[in-house]
Amino acid sequence: MTSACLAITGNRENRQTAGTPLNNTVFMPYCTGPSSIPNSLDYFESLLRDPNSGLDLPAAVILETIQAEGGIYVAEIEWLKRLRKLCDEYKMLLIVDDIQVGCGRSGTFFSFERAGIAPDIVCLAKSISGYGLPMAINLIKPGIDVWKPGQHTGTFRGNQLAFLAASGALDLWKTPDFQEEIHKKGLFISDYLTKRLKSIDARIELRGLGLLLGVDLSHVGGEAFAKKVSQSCFSAGLIIEKCGRDDVVLKVMPPLITSEEILEKGCDILCTAIQEEFK
Amino acid sequence: MTSACLAITGNRENRQTAGTPLNNTVFMPYCTGPSSIPNSLDYFESLLRDPNSGLDLPAAVILETIQAEGGIYVAEIEWLKRLRKLCDEYKMLLIVDDIQVGCGRSGTFFSFERAGIAPDIVCLAKSISGYGLPMAINLIKPGIDVWKPGQHTGTFRGNQLAFLAASGALDLWKTPDFQEEIHKKGLFISDYLTKRLKSIDARIELRGLGLLLGVDLSHVGGEAFAKKVSQSCFSAGLIIEKCGRDDVVLKVMPPLITSEEILEKGCDILCTAIQEEFK
Amino acid sequence: MTSACLAITGNRENRQTAGTPLNNTVFMPYCTGPSSIPNSLDYFESLLRDPNSGLDLPAAVILETIQAEGGIYVAEIEWLKRLRKLCDEYKMLLIVDDIQVGCGRSGTFFSFERAGIAPDIVCLAKSISGYGLPMAINLIKPGIDVWKPGQHTGTFRGNQLAFLAASGALDLWKTPDFQEEIHKKGLFISDYLTKRLKSIDARIELRGLGLLLGVDLSHVGGEAFAKKVSQSCFSAGLIIEKCGRDDVVLKVMPPLITSEEILEKGCDILCTAIQEEFK
Amino acid sequence: MTSACLAITGNRENRQTAGTPLNNTVFMPYCTGPSSIPNSLDYFESLLRDPNSGLDLPAAVILETIQAEGGIYVAEIEWLKRLRKLCDEYKMLLIVDDIQVGCGRSGTFFSFERAGIAPDIVCLAKSISGYGLPMAINLIKPGIDVWKPGQHTGTFRGNQLAFLAASGALDLWKTPDFQEEIHKKGLFISDYLTKRLKSIDARIELRGLGLLLGVDLSHVGGEAFAKKVSQSCFSAGLIIEKCGRDDVVLKVMPPLITSEEILEKGCDILCTAIQEEFK
Repeated sequence: MTSACLAITGNRENRQTAGTPLNNTVFMPYCTGPSSIPNSLDYFESLLRDPNSGLDLPAAVILETIQAEGGIYVAEIEWLKRLRKLCDEYKMLLIVDDIQVGCGRSGTFFSFERAGIAPDIVCLAKSISGYGLPMAINLIKPGIDVWKPGQHTGTFRGNQLAFLAASGALDLWKTPDFQEEIHKKGLFISDYLTKRLKSIDARIELRGLGLLLGVDLSHVGGEAFAKKVSQSCFSAGLIIEKCGRDDVVLKVMPPLITSEEILEKGCDILCTAIQEEFK
Repeated sequence: MTSACLAITGNRENRQTAGTPLNNTVFMPYCTGPSSIPNSLDYFESLLRDPNSGLDLPAAVILETIQAEGGIYVAEIEWLKRLRKLCDEYKMLLIVDDIQVGCGRSGTFFSFERAGIAPDIVCLAKSISGYGLPMAINLIKPGIDVWKPGQHTGTFRGNQLAFLAASGALDLWKTPDFQEEIHKKGLFISDYLTKRLKSIDARIELRGLGLLLGVDLSHVGGEAFAKKVSQSCFSAGLIIEKCGRDDVVLKVMPPLITSEEILEKGCDILCTAIQEEFK
Repeated sequence: MTSACLAITGNRENRQTAGTPLNNTVFMPYCTGPSSIPNSLDYFESLLRDPNSGLDLPAAVILETIQAEGGIYVAEIEWLKRLRKLCDEYKMLLIVDDIQVGCGRSGTFFSFERAGIAPDIVCLAKSISGYGLPMAINLIKPGIDVWKPGQHTGTFRGNQLAFLAASGALDLWKTPDFQEEIHKKGLFISDYLTKRLKSIDARIELRGLGLLLGVDLSHVGGEAFAKKVSQSCFSAGLIIEKCGRDDVVLKVMPPLITSEEILEKGCDILCTAIQEEFK
Repeated sequence: MTSACLAITGNRENRQTAGTPLNNTVFMPYCTGPSSIPNSLDYFESLLRDPNSGLDLPAAVILETIQAEGGIYVAEIEWLKRLRKLCDEYKMLLIVDDIQVGCGRSGTFFSFERAGIAPDIVCLAKSISGYGLPMAINLIKPGIDVWKPGQHTGTFRGNQLAFLAASGALDLWKTPDFQEEIHKKGLFISDYLTKRLKSIDARIELRGLGLLLGVDLSHVGGEAFAKKVSQSCFSAGLIIEKCGRDDVVLKVMPPLITSEEILEKGCDILCTAIQEEFK
C-alpha cells in the first residue's frame, strides 16, 4: 500500500508496515462510533477558524460516509451536509472513500446520495469490477485534475477482464427497479435480523444501511464470541467477515443480486449460529 | 527556528516559514482556552486506547503548564496530574516547555511544582540567563539522554556572559523568602488589577498565576483596543506586550525583583490607559 | 505507485506525480550508459568509506542488472560481483529489481545468475504471471523478513487467475532444454539483427542479452525516427516499444516461447521498417 | 541545529543527532579533496541534463568556496565560475556558506570575490560579530526574499552587544590598506610555514588561502600525531584546532588584526611542536 493510504488509515498495526513516518494527515473525530466526540464538527470548525490551533488549513477532507472496517457506523445526513459546507468555506476538497460502501452497497450507487452532496473526488474499487477483479477508479472533478493522461501509470493498469466485468456490473443499473430492489432487500434483512436478534439477546446491536449491516457482539462475549459465530457460519456455508475494534462486529454484506430466498437462508444461518453460542 | 520547533507551535503564520511540511506531531485540546473541549483528556485517552484511532503511540507529550503566547491560560492541577499518569501508562515522555513560564514566573522556580509532578524533559530559556542574553537549557532525565557530550554543538553554544548572568540569577533563589516574595507580589498585582479593572468594566477578564497575568480585552474592543492601550502604556513608560489570538490579551510580566512600589506604579499606568480608552 | 517506488525511479516526469518530496534515496552512477562515470564503484566506495561524505550508510542498494526502461544497458559481471562485496562489507542489503529483466528474459530465470551472486531481496512482476495478469512477488531472505503474515495486505492481493497462469509459466522451466532454447533464440535474434542493421547503417547500435535487445537509433535520426519505425512495425503486425532517454531505443522483447520462425519474421519486419525510413 | 543544516552537513556523526531522516538534499563531488572526482562539474551537469538521472532539478546549490571543517580545500576559480553559470542555466540559486571563510578570512571580505561571481544568498556568522558573540546574517538578493519582516523571529534574535561588536569589526574595513594587510599577512605565514615545514618533512602538506591555512599531517602520523602537536601548541600558548577527516589537518586561522610579530611567534610554536614530535 502507498504511504498516503497508510497515512489515512486508522489501523495502528497496518500503519506500522510503512516503516517510515506517516505524515501530512490529521485525524478528526467522526460523528458516531468509538473515536467520536459530541459536536465533532464544532471541534473541527474551531480548529480551522483558530489561526493558533496548530492545524494548517488542509487541502482536503477524506472520509467514508459509512465506516465499514471501522465497525459499520453510519454518518448522519446533517453531519455530512455540514461537512460539505465546511469544505466549501475553507476551500478544502471533499474526498469520499466509496471503495467499500459505494457501488450500490448503501442502497444508492454512491453512498453520499442520501445526503444530497457532491464530493470533489470519489474513490471506487472492490465491487466496481463486479466480483473482485483488480480495478480501482478515482472520479475527479475535471477542473482539479492536474495529472497528464497516463502520468501515474504502471504495468498492471487497465486490466481488461476487470473492465469487462465492471461494464457488466454497471449494466445491472439499467435494470428497472434495480435500486428499489436493493432497498427492499436491505429492509428485509434488517427486519429479519432485528426481530430474531432481539429475541436472542437485547444487548446485540444492529447497525447499518442498505445491504451493509453490522452485528455488534461487544456486549455479549466480544472477540472470542464473534470468532466462534463466524466459524460456525462458515461450517454452515456462510462467509461472514468481522470488523470493528477487536473484530467484534460481524459484517452482513451480501452481493446486490442475491435473491431474497438466499438472503433469508443466510440470515437464518447467522442467527442460529449466534443462538447456539448462547447455549 | 528548527522544523521540530515549528512543528509544535500552533501559530499558522510561523509554521508557514518552514517551507516544508511540519510533521511527526499531533495537537490535542488543552483543558482551557480557545482550542479546548470538555473532558479533553478523556478524548486523548480514547485515542491512545483505540488501536484504530489513527493516532500512533506518541514518544512524548509536550506542553506549557500555563499557555503564555496563547493568551495566559493556566492548566488545572488535576488535569496536569492525570496527564502525567497517562504519560506513564502509555510510556510517553512528558516534556514541559518552561521557557516563558519557568524560572520563577509562576511563583515557584518550575511552573509544574504546584501540581507535584516531575516531567522527563524540561526546556528552559528566556529568563534563565537573568536578563535576556542568549541561553537555553534542556534538563533531561539521565536515563533517557542518548546524546554524546557535545554531539549537538555549534559555534555559539555556551555564551560565557550569559552563563555568568544565569549564575547570578540563580543566586537570587538563595535569598531567604525569595519565593515567598514572588508569591506576595503576584497577589498584590492580582488584587490591584482585579479591583480596578472590575470598576472600569466587568467584561475585562484577568487570568494568570504568580507574576504572569493576562488582561483579556476581547469583550471590550478587542485587537484595536488592546493596541491603543499598549501604546499609551509605552508613552507613560511601561512596556506591555500583547498575546493571545488576535493580540487581545495584555501580558503583565514584570521582572521578579521589581519592588512593590514600582509594581503599583506599573499597574496604575495600565489601568489608567484602559480607563482613558473608555472615554 | 508508492512514493518509495517513485523515489527510486530516475524518471523526472514520473517523480513529479508524487506531489510530495521523494526521499530516503541516493542515486549512484551505473557502470555503463548515460548516467555513468568511469570507475563508478570506486566513487561509491569512497562515499561509503568517508565519514564526511554526506552519504549516510544506506540500508540497501537496489538496481536492475540490465537497465530496461533506461535503454537496455547490461551491467558487467565484475561490476556486479564487486557491488555484492561492497554490500556485504557495509552491511547493505542487495535488492535486485528483476521485474522486467527476470523470469528468463536474460537467458537464465534470474538476471543475476550470470554473475554468480545472490541478492537479499528479489522483486518479480510483469512476466511472472505468464502473460500480463496482475501479480508481483518479493523474494526475501528469511532472516530479514520482519513482516507478519498478511500484514501488508489489500483487497486485490492474491489474484487467483494470475496464480494459475504463473504456475503454468513456471512449469515451462521443467521442459528439458528450456533455458538452452532461450539462449539459442537470443543468439539467433542477435546475429540476425547485427548483420542486417550493420548493412543498413553502422551507426545503429545493438545492445542487450538473451531475449532483451535494444536497437539504439540516437545516431540515425533519434526520437522522430524511432517513432516512425515503431509505427511502421505496428502496421506490419509487430508491436515494438521504445525506451531510453528521449525514446530512441527500440526494445526487442519477444515472449520466451516464440518460435524461431516467428522471431525471424519479427526481425525482418523491424529491419525492413528501419530500411524504409532511410529512403 | 536545524534539520536543514544537518541535511547539508557531510558529517555522519552530526547527521545522526537529528533523529529523523535528513532529506531534500543531494551531495555532489567537490573539485578537490576526499569526496572529489575528476571533472566533477561534468558529472553534475550530466545529471541535470538527463531527465532520467534521478536528480530532480534542485532549487539551489550551497557550498563553501573553501572547505574549512572539511580539511581546508580551496575551490578553483574556473570551477566556481562554471558552477555559477550552471546555476544560471538551470535556474538554481547559488548559496555561498561564508560562515567560516568569509569576513576577510580568505583575503577579501567575501570568499567568492576572487572568482568574480555573485551568489544569490550569502550566509555569514562566526567572525561577523567581531569576536564570537552570537550573530548570523543571511544576505538575500531582494527579488527572492519571500519572508515578511520578523516572520522567522525568536527571543534571542538581534543580540545588541553582538550588533555593536559587528559594527566595530566592519569599521576595520574603512582602514586604508586593511585588505592589503590581510593579503600580506597571509603571504607571510604561508612563506614561513612552507619553508620550515618542508625542512622538517616533505610529506607535510600545506593548503589554504589568505589567513586560513591547513597543515595536513595525514602522511606523517595522522590523527594521533595531529592531536599531540595541537596539545604541545596549547601548552606553549597557541590554540590550534584540528579539521578534516580523522582530524589530521591543523587549522591556522589567526584573527585578521594580529600583528606580524605575533603571527611569526605562533608559526614558530607550531613548527617547533611538529619538529619535537619527530624526535
